[in-house]
Amino acid sequence: MKFIMCPIGIIHSPFKEKQETPIQPSRSQAIGKVIVFPEFTDGLQDLEGFSHIYLVYVFHESAGFTLRVKPFLDTLERGLFSTRYPVRPNPIGLSVVRLQTVHADELIVEGIDVLDGTPLLDIKPYMPEFDVRSDVRAGWYDNRSIK
Amino acid sequence: MKFIMCPIGIIHSPFKEKQETPIQPSRSQAIGKVIVFPEFTDGLQDLEGFSHIYLVYVFHESAGFTLRVKPFLDTLERGLFSTRYPVRPNPIGLSVVRLQTVHADELIVEGIDVLDGTPLLDIKPYMPEFDVRSDVRAGWYDNRSIK
Repeated sequence: MKFIMCPIGIIHSPFKEKQETPIQPSRSQAIGKVIVFPEFTDGLQDLEGFSHIYLVYVFHESAGFTLRVKPFLDTLERGLFSTRYPVRPNPIGLSVVRLQTVHADELIVEGIDVLDGTPLLDIKPYMPEFDVRSDVRAGWYDNRSIK
Repeated sequence: MKFIMCPIGIIHSPFKEKQETPIQPSRSQAIGKVIVFPEFTDGLQDLEGFSHIYLVYVFHESAGFTLRVKPFLDTLERGLFSTRYPVRPNPIGLSVVRLQTVHADELIVEGIDVLDGTPLLDIKPYMPEFDVRSDVRAGWYDNRSIK
């Protein structure tokens, strides 16, 4: 079973190299520009009412995957699926960013953490009722050695 | 530019038909069983320390896409990307669920909202520092006509 995904746009960011990319968006105040391809811009209607959105994208500079990784914020090896590490069987990335403006095919977002030129697969509204959970335990991350 | 995605597992749920599937996981207490294919189970290590996870999956019963949709919870047409509607250019679905148990290749999760047999693309840990935002505005959803 295979599924073919095609980008709906491109994410531009200040980060040209993996080494300078922030680890996750909550640690970044970097501004990004999302350009949505013309054939999809009609779907952006009503988006500007949302303060935050999910960007779903491809880790396009990651090749292959590994099932045990040493996370950026830890010193021990962990199971890949307990991390957000970019070397995944399906290299799909997910970030919550603050939506500043929507103009035609262009979104300006704050808190971007992806490489410049990242292929965008989807945009979803961030909806507290669906996406915010309390009483959360975050396993190794709660007890990580690097804070 | 194309990206080929292959399932890493299958999500089993009580929902055999689209009509009976809950709208989003926060409205569901349904129990789901995620079976991860043998070649990927090694990546599940350390996951059980997390109370919540993201399931990233394919809306496998959705064909094609449309850029304006009437959301389940509203009576007006909205831009697709301001909704979680399943008819998307890249039919990727995203749900936060509570992780009950991990045993070998099987995860038991609570709050499932997908069709039985849904192809799983990725599992990510839900990490409050990265994924929880406050001061959120949720556009049309905040002012929706159906509550």
